[in-house]
Amino acid sequence: MAGEPGRLLGGLDKFREECGVFGIYGAGAEVARLTYYGLFALQHRGQESAGMAVSCGNGIEVHKGLGLVAEVFHPEHFRTLKGEVAIGHVRYSTTGSTSLANAQPLVASTGKGMLAVAHNGNLVNTSSLRRRLSAEGSVFQTTTDSEIILNLLARYRHPSLPEAIKECMAQIKGAYSLAIMTEKQLFAVRDPHGIRPLCLGRLGASVVVASESCALDVLGAELIREVEPGEIIIIDEHGISSLQGARADRPAHCIFEFIYFARPDSTLQGLNVYAVRRELGRRLAAESAVDADLVVPVPDSGVAAAAGYAEAAGLPLVEGLIKNRYVGRTFIQPTQERRELGVRLKLNPIRSLLQGKRVIIIDDSLVRGTTGRHIIQMLREAGAREVHLLIASPPVLHPCYYGIDTSTCGELIAARWPVEKVRRYVGCDTLYYLSLEGLLGAFGSRRDHYCTACFTGCYPVPLEGCYLVEGLEPG
Amino acid sequence: MAGEPGRLLGGLDKFREECGVFGIYGAGAEVARLTYYGLFALQHRGQESAGMAVSCGNGIEVHKGLGLVAEVFHPEHFRTLKGEVAIGHVRYSTTGSTSLANAQPLVASTGKGMLAVAHNGNLVNTSSLRRRLSAEGSVFQTTTDSEIILNLLARYRHPSLPEAIKECMAQIKGAYSLAIMTEKQLFAVRDPHGIRPLCLGRLGASVVVASESCALDVLGAELIREVEPGEIIIIDEHGISSLQGARADRPAHCIFEFIYFARPDSTLQGLNVYAVRRELGRRLAAESAVDADLVVPVPDSGVAAAAGYAEAAGLPLVEGLIKNRYVGRTFIQPTQERRELGVRLKLNPIRSLLQGKRVIIIDDSLVRGTTGRHIIQMLREAGAREVHLLIASPPVLHPCYYGIDTSTCGELIAARWPVEKVRRYVGCDTLYYLSLEGLLGAFGSRRDHYCTACFTGCYPVPLEGCYLVEGLEPG
Amino acid sequence: MAGEPGRLLGGLDKFREECGVFGIYGAGAEVARLTYYGLFALQHRGQESAGMAVSCGNGIEVHKGLGLVAEVFHPEHFRTLKGEVAIGHVRYSTTGSTSLANAQPLVASTGKGMLAVAHNGNLVNTSSLRRRLSAEGSVFQTTTDSEIILNLLARYRHPSLPEAIKECMAQIKGAYSLAIMTEKQLFAVRDPHGIRPLCLGRLGASVVVASESCALDVLGAELIREVEPGEIIIIDEHGISSLQGARADRPAHCIFEFIYFARPDSTLQGLNVYAVRRELGRRLAAESAVDADLVVPVPDSGVAAAAGYAEAAGLPLVEGLIKNRYVGRTFIQPTQERRELGVRLKLNPIRSLLQGKRVIIIDDSLVRGTTGRHIIQMLREAGAREVHLLIASPPVLHPCYYGIDTSTCGELIAARWPVEKVRRYVGCDTLYYLSLEGLLGAFGSRRDHYCTACFTGCYPVPLEGCYLVEGLEPG
Amino acid sequence: MAGEPGRLLGGLDKFREECGVFGIYGAGAEVARLTYYGLFALQHRGQESAGMAVSCGNGIEVHKGLGLVAEVFHPEHFRTLKGEVAIGHVRYSTTGSTSLANAQPLVASTGKGMLAVAHNGNLVNTSSLRRRLSAEGSVFQTTTDSEIILNLLARYRHPSLPEAIKECMAQIKGAYSLAIMTEKQLFAVRDPHGIRPLCLGRLGASVVVASESCALDVLGAELIREVEPGEIIIIDEHGISSLQGARADRPAHCIFEFIYFARPDSTLQGLNVYAVRRELGRRLAAESAVDADLVVPVPDSGVAAAAGYAEAAGLPLVEGLIKNRYVGRTFIQPTQERRELGVRLKLNPIRSLLQGKRVIIIDDSLVRGTTGRHIIQMLREAGAREVHLLIASPPVLHPCYYGIDTSTCGELIAARWPVEKVRRYVGCDTLYYLSLEGLLGAFGSRRDHYCTACFTGCYPVPLEGCYLVEGLEPG
Repeated sequence: MAGEPGRLLGGLDKFREECGVFGIYGAGAEVARLTYYGLFALQHRGQESAGMAVSCGNGIEVHKGLGLVAEVFHPEHFRTLKGEVAIGHVRYSTTGSTSLANAQPLVASTGKGMLAVAHNGNLVNTSSLRRRLSAEGSVFQTTTDSEIILNLLARYRHPSLPEAIKECMAQIKGAYSLAIMTEKQLFAVRDPHGIRPLCLGRLGASVVVASESCALDVLGAELIREVEPGEIIIIDEHGISSLQGARADRPAHCIFEFIYFARPDSTLQGLNVYAVRRELGRRLAAESAVDADLVVPVPDSGVAAAAGYAEAAGLPLVEGLIKNRYVGRTFIQPTQERRELGVRLKLNPIRSLLQGKRVIIIDDSLVRGTTGRHIIQMLREAGAREVHLLIASPPVLHPCYYGIDTSTCGELIAARWPVEKVRRYVGCDTLYYLSLEGLLGAFGSRRDHYCTACFTGCYPVPLEGCYLVEGLEPG
Repeated sequence: MAGEPGRLLGGLDKFREECGVFGIYGAGAEVARLTYYGLFALQHRGQESAGMAVSCGNGIEVHKGLGLVAEVFHPEHFRTLKGEVAIGHVRYSTTGSTSLANAQPLVASTGKGMLAVAHNGNLVNTSSLRRRLSAEGSVFQTTTDSEIILNLLARYRHPSLPEAIKECMAQIKGAYSLAIMTEKQLFAVRDPHGIRPLCLGRLGASVVVASESCALDVLGAELIREVEPGEIIIIDEHGISSLQGARADRPAHCIFEFIYFARPDSTLQGLNVYAVRRELGRRLAAESAVDADLVVPVPDSGVAAAAGYAEAAGLPLVEGLIKNRYVGRTFIQPTQERRELGVRLKLNPIRSLLQGKRVIIIDDSLVRGTTGRHIIQMLREAGAREVHLLIASPPVLHPCYYGIDTSTCGELIAARWPVEKVRRYVGCDTLYYLSLEGLLGAFGSRRDHYCTACFTGCYPVPLEGCYLVEGLEPG
Repeated sequence: MAGEPGRLLGGLDKFREECGVFGIYGAGAEVARLTYYGLFALQHRGQESAGMAVSCGNGIEVHKGLGLVAEVFHPEHFRTLKGEVAIGHVRYSTTGSTSLANAQPLVASTGKGMLAVAHNGNLVNTSSLRRRLSAEGSVFQTTTDSEIILNLLARYRHPSLPEAIKECMAQIKGAYSLAIMTEKQLFAVRDPHGIRPLCLGRLGASVVVASESCALDVLGAELIREVEPGEIIIIDEHGISSLQGARADRPAHCIFEFIYFARPDSTLQGLNVYAVRRELGRRLAAESAVDADLVVPVPDSGVAAAAGYAEAAGLPLVEGLIKNRYVGRTFIQPTQERRELGVRLKLNPIRSLLQGKRVIIIDDSLVRGTTGRHIIQMLREAGAREVHLLIASPPVLHPCYYGIDTSTCGELIAARWPVEKVRRYVGCDTLYYLSLEGLLGAFGSRRDHYCTACFTGCYPVPLEGCYLVEGLEPG
Repeated sequence: MAGEPGRLLGGLDKFREECGVFGIYGAGAEVARLTYYGLFALQHRGQESAGMAVSCGNGIEVHKGLGLVAEVFHPEHFRTLKGEVAIGHVRYSTTGSTSLANAQPLVASTGKGMLAVAHNGNLVNTSSLRRRLSAEGSVFQTTTDSEIILNLLARYRHPSLPEAIKECMAQIKGAYSLAIMTEKQLFAVRDPHGIRPLCLGRLGASVVVASESCALDVLGAELIREVEPGEIIIIDEHGISSLQGARADRPAHCIFEFIYFARPDSTLQGLNVYAVRRELGRRLAAESAVDADLVVPVPDSGVAAAAGYAEAAGLPLVEGLIKNRYVGRTFIQPTQERRELGVRLKLNPIRSLLQGKRVIIIDDSLVRGTTGRHIIQMLREAGAREVHLLIASPPVLHPCYYGIDTSTCGELIAARWPVEKVRRYVGCDTLYYLSLEGLLGAFGSRRDHYCTACFTGCYPVPLEGCYLVEGLEPG
């Protein structure tokens, strides 16, 4: 399920969520430790770096590092990172020597005191903003667009920070869910379309914000509601107050959160993610008419949809592909000569269950098709008589500019080839994608509250002139 | 599934398999690298230490370390660990300063050349053997019973190593699956009852032995057969030959391999482990008569049985408990005050799916009951109307002396309390265990080929006099 | 000698130099590797962090880390850090979570391209500069004054970088020796007083700048000359050119470089450091009239002066205190109860040489007096009949604001107590400091080219209004 | 001085001491922590691995690791390694995968309880002993000769351990200084010639044994006396008792301990090491008649002799070669093309002091001559008019079989070439070695109490038949 680490997937051919954010305000609470557990619950949203900023009353302390939350933080950090306000961040980032510099939260001293920012999402007008700020003397020490937000906040901070956030929101375009803190306040901010998720919760006298509700659950916190599109939530000694930072636009929540990114136990827009995925499987069964003996999920991404499919189709659900959960960063890949080992080390088919069978294999999405091809070949070698690959979402035809790793977008197989050619490439007997209609149907009357740009090319936020893929990395 | 790391389970209340062994003989093969991948597939059998010994023609090189296979080995080891014969070992071990010394393979120089031994299982007459060997001048530098085997082999090696193995088998009692190597030969040895698993496979011109067939699968090797009880298999330049090292006794294969230890994609005694687990779920449905709305597996141990149960009972299978797969060794546990966080960080229920429902929760076994209790409490807090805990194996009443971690045996809840008291403790509405009859039925005509001592107290190998739990650790 | 790591001294009671800088320009040279060796030769100037920036033609790559040069860099960095221009930095820094953020070089993207800065020295008007820049929208992500320089350079960069450096020099006050680079140019800049050292050299077709000439020596580079006070040296494809960035003021080179900081094999202002120290020892002999049997240096800081002293006084020079060179960062300090172990683990007296002797002990300076006290007690316990402590520099009475760690300044023993009281505290029979006159005499006609503020309180650069010790750390 | 780490010397061309041992018996003392400090003082005797064994009343705990003492031990070890008896070991070892297995102390369980052994020295009859023990069933899990001692002790332990030690001493031949412990006793044992050092001290109510007296000094312990040749010292609840384990032979203490190995602050056979080295310098001055301007020591090995030389010759002692003390294990060596960097990174001459001068350079010994050659070339490049290399010991002509690393013995330059050829190779104007007579004269009436085999070929312990360099590594 979504608990699955993207990095462990290795070549398992998925889009990558870019970030998760967390924030907590609470006098007397162990804010650093709770942020640790919150980030831990959001680990699936970014495995390359983790960080937290904690107000120690007299300044903001920060600790960041490359790796998983459990690798970056040590118990002594909780002895030194004391305070009443904290924000945290997990991040997927490109490799290279700059990656630690790009880890968040970004913390800075401004003319009005210290400030820390954690950002999930991606701006689409970074080029012109950065050019303008540079011309006015700003220097950029990272390659993140989040640093632009930090600079804008510093520049407009003088009357008050909420005003600065409003001013900043007037200038930035794109996707952003932000947790911002000063030494005494916590802010939660979401872009006018609400593209990336952000929710608000309560844990006793403390207030918590997080990318997903699963981070509230693990703390025992109660979900109050989502942060609304365009909203600024201010949490301080006076409690929680709200401000419309920018006029809310048509909601355009990322629909891929439901398809793949979010943890199945999270609730987004009032819908449980697992339940939606299962429903997508049921709808896939209704749309496709494949005659088969059994339904095998691709672990872990296809498990919920496969359960829905098997139920709707009245077919047995069989875990015919077993995943080795120990593949990690330090794993030594097979050499070229033994490349076929690569997928089998991660995923092993159970021959006796598949022998002579007509197998339906279910996954949530198909990006490059390489892993699908390997899996189907393995199933055939294991004796499957027929292999039908059913995908619980439509073909991905367009890149995402709002916070999903677009580095593989040139490789979107569905954008390059017609379905029949993709089928021949991956080598299955049937290849079927859920229709857009089928996908949207799962969201009922709110079907137009979602961003479906990766399927339809209809981008809710217009891109800047000729959009160049810049060096900037999404937060 | 069984790919699940025991160590990640933390308090998830399972028995622990003690070891996995692997061996390969093959001129020209990259034996060190293949051993790495083989051990990687056996990682679920031991996560505390890993090691391999490789014959470099002129002596045996060894590398061992604490941690997972991917942590212990680095690419440079494959540059230096060259040769045509290799054996490997993964191990669960108690913590403490002696653990690295206890890592296997054990390698020694004897009067007749070098020797390396990897052992899965546990001897029951170590006390008297060690006393006798000590009296004859042996020194023991580890606290493993495997070192006794090493000493016996050295002592009786003079005519030939196969003779020494036979002599050794005549003296040791208990469970042992061994991979033994010299600079030029590989041996696979199994105790007269075949308690712990060991199988033989072929990869092109190379020969492979492994605790489980999944280690053959990942290499693309073909399973030839199991090593027979009491058999010595000799692999060298003349090919594969076989010798009866000790008279085969009644087969007493560990039945818990099917219940929990083995990977679901492994085949033991011709049976696929996943299929047996699913069948146990079906039998559990047939035996128990619980009226409920949905079936929720405890991930990952209850997944296969839950699928069988749901299918047989005609109930929906719902993944209502979501596991965080990032809990690792370095994870900082919650403080005492926030202990309730502990289980929730690992396992989070999906409230909207459980609300008001009568829930059947399925697990493979129940050892101490503490995690079961936490899970049931979480399910109730999540709104489940009824919670029925069904266990796909009989109550564990007796300790294992044949290679399973017995450290928790004093805490076997079923041995201490009657079922009704256990039910009240874990807090479910119904607690039902699969009957022994139900369990054995899944094995058909071979139902008496298994060791069921942990359920019945009928130990296939008599224990030494008054069996004291000694300092010795099982291999 | 000065190669001695300050950190190893532990409590050995010395001022700490804050930084060393290095730069190289050279098409075809292995600039990253040469920077590594250059920094290695400057390691005594900072042991807490190290870093280098390398132009890769298309942008500037940076690698920084906490620890010694040999710990921070690995061979793979030389594979990835390619280019024709590089600068490097070693730094002593306060501990804490912010220290890595403060490591240098600072690298930033500005409106006119990338820029990297390495700074040795300390500004004295950071407060007002930072306030002004913050008011204009700058954010500060570190707590170094070097980031102010970076921001000023970015702000004034538009016509050309040399102009920006001039404009920056017009605004900053204090001590600064800078290595600055763009993707194609290297700059060496020194403040108008030339407080901290900086020299220029040539290695074949490459040009090198470094804090000390010893860094040129190890590369086999030839010393051309020092960078002049107020000078900007520009190194690019057109060769070396020079520009007066600010009007040169009276030279005020840090005299403590000669007393303690610099490596003895370095040449500063045409004088060899070892030779000067030895001369200070001779002058100390001329001034003091102590009757004794032997001269013992405090290793390694007093070695050169002791040699000069012994020679001039005609007394035997005896290494009666033996230093353990293995005390490092990870060394476990003795517990409180065994505190007396602390100094003895680092420094052990040779009893048989000291027994019954009248001993002169020579050190370069005396800061807090605690180690001196321990040493004298050890010498007495070892049987010395008399112990005379002679210091080869005057009493340190005033803090340094130009790049020396001032954290211990509140503890300057000579500033708190009269000499007689200090003598009683450290427990020696005689305590004698070299006179200021004696010190300056070693510099001949250039005696007024040095900053002696720590002895005299005459600060060459006036401090800002009421100088507050700010959070900012010197570069 | 001798505190200098051999490993830091890199190619600095010295023999390597193989080991240091330490032991402490003391109810109530923090034996683990004191062992740590003791080993730390003996660090110069072995930098590749360190270990300690501590009796925890109920068994012996051991911790060993590769690296320096400060790297191997962490504070938590002192929480877990509790007890009243401890022994420790530092070791130089060859690299390779077996090195950790070879780290000492060796700890074993025998028929009579646990036993730990730490060994400095080298046996010369390992071959036949190992053959015999193997034939009797012993297995060897390390490649150290110390394991033979362990096996012999176990084998003869039955009446009493002192008897077993005696029996063991009757069988082993060669050099051995041993610290042995059981759960309740500490033993110090020295071979009949007393080849390697071992001394006895008292720290309050505790008793300490150590390879060198400097390890007593750092603890504040008092030196009682040396362990006598052939003596067994037994320390337990009854105090200290002594036993002649083997008939004392002619004393043959290793003379190289005075020349290079021992720390200058140690006392051996009543003589201070520094004082002896200084005397060797004086004798060198008396023997050689070189006209020169100044005396430069090779740091740190030639420092004491150079001081004696300069004093006797009435020449100025100048530290004209400055050593970089940061060269460590992780240091990245220059590439082949820049090999000349190698020595200069470690040792830099001060040009201005050497220019036009006639220089005498003093070192303790000359092994391969490669570093000498580099140093002399550097001095010439630095402008020295003449360079005279004087060595404070005779030419090394024969390998050592008693515990010194013999791996470089094939490369002994003095054994291969006449002095004049060596002189031409290293490139000096004069090459002079101290005469054997000069060396022995420093030891007065005890001049025949030393092993001078490396100079004379007169081995005090005859080698076994045709002595083959075996795989076994000295302890």
